[in-house]
Amino acid sequence: MAKAAAKKLGPVEKKLVGVADTVITAADRGKDPALSIPVRSLANINFNEKRGIIEMGKRKQERTLFNVGMAKKFMQTVLVADALAELQRANLTTSLREIYYRTKHTMKDSSENTFDGQNESDPLIEDLEVTLTALREELHVRAENAGSIVGPVVLTDDGDRVDCARLGKGGYSVPSIVEPEFIQIRRCTADFVLLVEKGTQWNRLSEDKFWRRYNCVLLTGNGQPPRGVRRLARRLHEEHGLPVYVLVDNDPWGYYIYSVVKQGSINLAFESERMAIPKAKFIGLSSSDPDTYGLPRNVGIKLNDKDIGRAKELIKYRWFQKKPWQEEIKRMLASGLKYELDALANKDFRYLTKTYLPKKLKDRDWLD
Amino acid sequence: MAKAAAKKLGPVEKKLVGVADTVITAADRGKDPALSIPVRSLANINFNEKRGIIEMGKRKQERTLFNVGMAKKFMQTVLVADALAELQRANLTTSLREIYYRTKHTMKDSSENTFDGQNESDPLIEDLEVTLTALREELHVRAENAGSIVGPVVLTDDGDRVDCARLGKGGYSVPSIVEPEFIQIRRCTADFVLLVEKGTQWNRLSEDKFWRRYNCVLLTGNGQPPRGVRRLARRLHEEHGLPVYVLVDNDPWGYYIYSVVKQGSINLAFESERMAIPKAKFIGLSSSDPDTYGLPRNVGIKLNDKDIGRAKELIKYRWFQKKPWQEEIKRMLASGLKYELDALANKDFRYLTKTYLPKKLKDRDWLD
Repeated sequence: MAKAAAKKLGPVEKKLVGVADTVITAADRGKDPALSIPVRSLANINFNEKRGIIEMGKRKQERTLFNVGMAKKFMQTVLVADALAELQRANLTTSLREIYYRTKHTMKDSSENTFDGQNESDPLIEDLEVTLTALREELHVRAENAGSIVGPVVLTDDGDRVDCARLGKGGYSVPSIVEPEFIQIRRCTADFVLLVEKGTQWNRLSEDKFWRRYNCVLLTGNGQPPRGVRRLARRLHEEHGLPVYVLVDNDPWGYYIYSVVKQGSINLAFESERMAIPKAKFIGLSSSDPDTYGLPRNVGIKLNDKDIGRAKELIKYRWFQKKPWQEEIKRMLASGLKYELDALANKDFRYLTKTYLPKKLKDRDWLD
Repeated sequence: MAKAAAKKLGPVEKKLVGVADTVITAADRGKDPALSIPVRSLANINFNEKRGIIEMGKRKQERTLFNVGMAKKFMQTVLVADALAELQRANLTTSLREIYYRTKHTMKDSSENTFDGQNESDPLIEDLEVTLTALREELHVRAENAGSIVGPVVLTDDGDRVDCARLGKGGYSVPSIVEPEFIQIRRCTADFVLLVEKGTQWNRLSEDKFWRRYNCVLLTGNGQPPRGVRRLARRLHEEHGLPVYVLVDNDPWGYYIYSVVKQGSINLAFESERMAIPKAKFIGLSSSDPDTYGLPRNVGIKLNDKDIGRAKELIKYRWFQKKPWQEEIKRMLASGLKYELDALANKDFRYLTKTYLPKKLKDRDWLD
């Protein structure tokens, strides 16, 4: 792949080189170079009810070179595009922070820096993602590995065959970039994906070989799932038709994690297209579970003002308007309590594996 | 192993059951049951110059049942010991938080809870670790997976043969517990371990297959290395004679990460015995590196008051008294700048792989 890239421009590199070309072409014609960049703000976002995802609108903003306010930003955009093109050419990946460092230098005959902080380069990378309709991952920008996977799925990573059913309890460390260019899903015989918010519950299920008994893929991102974990779940869903069940704490933050997996996030609306899983189901913890499973009230945690405020925001979101969701959130508010997944251990250390999830799956007890 | 545990008490279970036995034996004799627990405070800690580790002293504290102030704590200790014995019997592992939930209930004929928060159960687990001289991991208490490993080392996890040289760029997800009971090191042909503070630099090295060219094991914990990563490095060092090189940011926090890997931490002094690697070397970033490698001053970050305060603390620690270390820290203070590993990208995206580390290794340029 590295060799092929050296011979001719790949599709992403072509787009990136196009950014620099804009300057040259405009200069040749004696015109002011301009980039047209989609607006990333709440006002330019909407929820597509039919598709079930949060989408970006069509508003754009011109960025010109000879506008005093825009000149530096324009130059910075070209620098970042150039660094990203370098990654494509060499078939490398890197981090947001390293792109900042790579593009930072003191400008000729001045004491001014091209960039003073990463807060100047990060938004430009997002600009380019949107403008070029290339996911950050396709631009070869990654974070650290964050997440683990076990189950009957075989991946190829750098030519190595990684059988996630043969990696003990620890599993495969999910990279930040799992695009088909880097990770191929060779085989998947699982029936569904269980995406677990917390690493410690994922460990419980992995230790108990839950994935073997229920023929599923166990995924976690140790908290709010990072992009690599979301993309991997989406690819298993899309390429292998696996339903995705999301298991989170019963609190407004758990609801929100689920909603980001399902319809995407407000901040990164342009990524929903490739990241969201509109058919994902919320398998728990539900605010009705403490009753159903006999969890004592003293393992619940009193909702604080922030929890209550956040729940009241969620209840208004268009994607939480379905009746069962309104009931779900209102029931939590009425009880005044939130419950962590960890609280299931109050019944028994293996309650999650032996009782809770088996019953949930048997009863098809989830929210859409 | 689970079956064997069911037949007769394992060594750790025996110790745990002994805690409950103390109560019964004392009651039989009409005496006040008491536990003798080593004191975990700064006053009971010292640096063993010869062994190069931070050790606990010999001071102990009596915990009795019929002392009004101690009664609840005594009962809680027995509850926690009982939950931990349950883990041993069933050969399960769990988290600190789940132990809290498992042992929490409302006391008979009262409205009082056995535990009101995890801040009550966590220190008791530490008490038991010290008293029974069993690492938390041997008590089967874990956190989530946190870290990745690649390189020429073959592990066995749950009967699966995990070849860390055949797991692509992502690698094996390092579990929290890597004790021989759970993870066996089957084969290791590497020449050294490189323990990298930051996940993104680990990714750089993994992507570049640095481990293949320099025949090493690449380990990261994505920041301050968690216990599982430290124990794995220690086991590779101890069982396979591998030197351990630590690569961190050039700031007081990087120095401290190195020092914890090397001689253990002040807070958890009783664990140094099994976690510390007194022969670990600091391979960088050193405060002399910006000069040596021509890093421009504008990729350095100005030391803030917290950095300066911390550096001045470190300079007084007994384990930083060697002359090269005094120079190292003073040079950083004098420059007024700290440097992140990421800043190496300013030279080139692959500078770490192609220039920095090769030269460091060739010159044996590290601090002890």
